[in-house]
Amino acid sequence: NYPAAGSTSGRIFAPYSVYKGKAALSINPILPTFTKLESGGIKVDRRGVMMLKFWPAIGERKYDWEKRQLFALSATEMGSIISMGPQDSCELFHDPSMLSSNAGQVRKSLAIKPHADGSGYFFNLNVVNNILKTSERFTVPVTTAEFAVMKAACSFALPHIMGWDRYTTHPPRRTEGSPSRVDTQLLDLEWDK
Amino acid sequence: NYPAAGSTSGRIFAPYSVYKGKAALSINPILPTFTKLESGGIKVDRRGVMMLKFWPAIGERKYDWEKRQLFALSATEMGSIISMGPQDSCELFHDPSMLSSNAGQVRKSLAIKPHADGSGYFFNLNVVNNILKTSERFTVPVTTAEFAVMKAACSFALPHIMGWDRYTTHPPRRTEGSPSRVDTQLLDLEWDK
Amino acid sequence: NYPAAGSTSGRIFAPYSVYKGKAALSINPILPTFTKLESGGIKVDRRGVMMLKFWPAIGERKYDWEKRQLFALSATEMGSIISMGPQDSCELFHDPSMLSSNAGQVRKSLAIKPHADGSGYFFNLNVVNNILKTSERFTVPVTTAEFAVMKAACSFALPHIMGWDRYTTHPPRRTEGSPSRVDTQLLDLEWDK
Amino acid sequence: NYPAAGSTSGRIFAPYSVYKGKAALSINPILPTFTKLESGGIKVDRRGVMMLKFWPAIGERKYDWEKRQLFALSATEMGSIISMGPQDSCELFHDPSMLSSNAGQVRKSLAIKPHADGSGYFFNLNVVNNILKTSERFTVPVTTAEFAVMKAACSFALPHIMGWDRYTTHPPRRTEGSPSRVDTQLLDLEWDK
Repeated sequence: NYPAAGSTSGRIFAPYSVYKGKAALSINPILPTFTKLESGGIKVDRRGVMMLKFWPAIGERKYDWEKRQLFALSATEMGSIISMGPQDSCELFHDPSMLSSNAGQVRKSLAIKPHADGSGYFFNLNVVNNILKTSERFTVPVTTAEFAVMKAACSFALPHIMGWDRYTTHPPRRTEGSPSRVDTQLLDLEWDK
Repeated sequence: NYPAAGSTSGRIFAPYSVYKGKAALSINPILPTFTKLESGGIKVDRRGVMMLKFWPAIGERKYDWEKRQLFALSATEMGSIISMGPQDSCELFHDPSMLSSNAGQVRKSLAIKPHADGSGYFFNLNVVNNILKTSERFTVPVTTAEFAVMKAACSFALPHIMGWDRYTTHPPRRTEGSPSRVDTQLLDLEWDK
Repeated sequence: NYPAAGSTSGRIFAPYSVYKGKAALSINPILPTFTKLESGGIKVDRRGVMMLKFWPAIGERKYDWEKRQLFALSATEMGSIISMGPQDSCELFHDPSMLSSNAGQVRKSLAIKPHADGSGYFFNLNVVNNILKTSERFTVPVTTAEFAVMKAACSFALPHIMGWDRYTTHPPRRTEGSPSRVDTQLLDLEWDK
Repeated sequence: NYPAAGSTSGRIFAPYSVYKGKAALSINPILPTFTKLESGGIKVDRRGVMMLKFWPAIGERKYDWEKRQLFALSATEMGSIISMGPQDSCELFHDPSMLSSNAGQVRKSLAIKPHADGSGYFFNLNVVNNILKTSERFTVPVTTAEFAVMKAACSFALPHIMGWDRYTTHPPRRTEGSPSRVDTQLLDLEWDK
C-alpha cells in the first residue's frame, strides 16, 4: 500500500501543535528503521524519536515555518518528560555535530519549567550556532491540559519509537506438540543465553 | 470492507452511557479524516473529537433522545479531563457559530465539578441559543468509577483522535544496506529540517 | 480464520490466575458481541465483561474447578477497581436472576479490602443461593504486584470490552476533495445531531 | 511472512539498553507460545516474560556480552516493578533449576533499590552457581527517566506477555438475529459456568 523508505510518499502529517504569542511548538513521532539480518530476524537500525519543532511568531497569528528549529527526543528523554510531576523541571542538551569535526559548534538546550502558579510549563529552546554566529531562543507556555496531551501522546508513541510494537505484532509461535511443563519452562528461559 | 466517508454505513455504535435521574450522558470518539497529498503522504483534514451527548429524562427511566445536545471535546480539552485530580474542576466554552456571522448567538459551556464528598463529579452542560431563544441545562452526576472509565476511554482514544495511530500502523521503512552509525543518526535528524 | 459465535472453537484461554491457600482466582476478558444494522453500521449487542472466577482449594495445591463461581465485571465496575487507591475498598452486588421471576433468590457480593499492612488486598466472593439452599464464601489474598497486574490488564482490556477498538480499527474516512476549514469543522460537528 | 517457531528467523532485536560504568542492562519482551486445542481454541503454553540481561564492563565503553546473565520476569514480577513508587524497593529470587535434581544449586536475586537522593534506582543482580563454583554480581544505576521508560515499556508489553492481545485481535462474534435483552444478558454470563 505504502511505498518503502527513501521515498517521500507515505509520510503522515498529524503533529500535535500549540500556537502561542511568541512561538509555536509541535510534536510528532518518527519511527525507528529496521535492518533485516541474514538470520531472517530484524534489528533496529536507526532509533525512533519524538520530534519537537519550534518556530517563531512574526505577527498576530502568523508564524515563520522557515525559521523552525528541531529537537529530537530519544526514548530516555521521553522518559524524563513522562515522569515529570507538577513541580518538576527538566533540562536536556544536544549537540547535533557530536562525534564530528564540528563537535561543540552547535549547542541546543531544551528546558521545561513549571509555571509559578502550577498552571502548566514553559518550554524553552535555545540554539547557539557558532558556525552561523546565531543564537535563537523560543519560549512556548504550555498549559496543564496541553502537557497532559503531550504526556499521553508520548506514552502511546514510546513503545513504537523503541520498536517494541514489532515484538507484539509478530505472528505467534505455536507449539502444537505434547503437554508442557509450565512451571519450569519459564525458568528454563534463563539458561538459554 | 467498509464504505468511505459520506455514507452512513460502516458506522460504529458503542457509546459509553450513564443514565441518571434528570438526564443521560454518553461519550464516543469520532476519528479524524485525512487528505491524501500529491506527494503520496496523508495529512489530518478534520481533527477527531470525543463527542459528549446529553439528553433529558422525561419520566422514570425514560429519556428524550430528540432533545439531545452535543459538546465535542478537542484533544486538548480531553487533556483537561485526563489530568483532573479528585478535587479539580474544569470549565470549557464553545461557540458552534464561531467565525460565522452568527458568532456569539449560541453559547455552550461544560462544567465538571467534584462532589463535596469526593464521590465523583457533576457534569453540567448549559446551552444558550439566542436564535431560538432557548436555554437548556443538563446535570449528570458521575461516580468515581464512571469517571475512571471515561478517563481510561479518553486515554485510549486520544492518540487515535490525534491521528497518531497512522504513524504506528504505517509499514516500517527498512534499510537493508550497510551497518549504520547509531549514535550520530539520531542527532542527524535534527539537521534534517 | 476463526469460526463465528456459537461455536466453541476459536476460544482463547489465557486467564491471569492466582492460587492461594483457600481458593484460586482468575480473570479474563469477554468481548462484546455486535449486531449489524440495516444501515450497514454495527452496534454493540451484548456488552463485554471482565470475568472473575473463584474456585476452592481441596488440599495442598489442589483446587476444585467444578465448584467455581463467576462474577462478571461491567465496564463501570472495572472503573471501580482501576481507580482504587492503596487504602480504598470496594463492594459490588450482583443478582444473576434480576428482572426474572427468581429475582433476589441468588445474591452475589464481591468485596475488595486492603490488607492492614498495605501489602495488597483481600478478594472476597460471597454467593447465597436460596434456590439450592447454599452459601459459599471464597477469600483470596492478592498481593500489590498481583493487583497491579489486574489493574494493568483491566486498563488494557477496558476499551475492548466497551467495543471501542472498533472505532479505531475502522478504516479511515478519507476526504480527497478541496481544502477544508479546519477551525470551524470541529465546531460544525456539534450541530450535526 | 515470518517463519514459525523453532527457527531463528523472524526474531526481533529491539532491546532497551542502558550502559553504565560497571555493567550494562537490557530488557526485551518474550511473548508466550500457544497450543491449539482439539476444540479449535488456543491456550497459552509457555508464558511470556520480560527478559532482563546484565553484562559486565571490561574497559571504557567496552562490555563483555559473553558474560551476560539473564533474569526472566513473570507477569506478576512485572507488576512488582510497575507498582513501585519513588521510595520503594523490591527483591526477587529465582532458582532456574527449581523442580529439578539441581534445585538450589543456582540462586539468582534481583534487587531494585532507590537512590538516596531520589534520582533513580540501583538494579543489582546476584548469581551464585554452586555447580560452577561462581558468584557474580552486577550493579547498574538506572535514572528516573530510564526507569520511566522501563515502566512504560513493561506496561505496554504486559498484556502481550499474558497473551491477552489474543482476546482483542480475535475476530468479533456477531449476532445478527433478534433484538436482545441487554440488561439481563450480562447477568446471564454468570450462570454460564
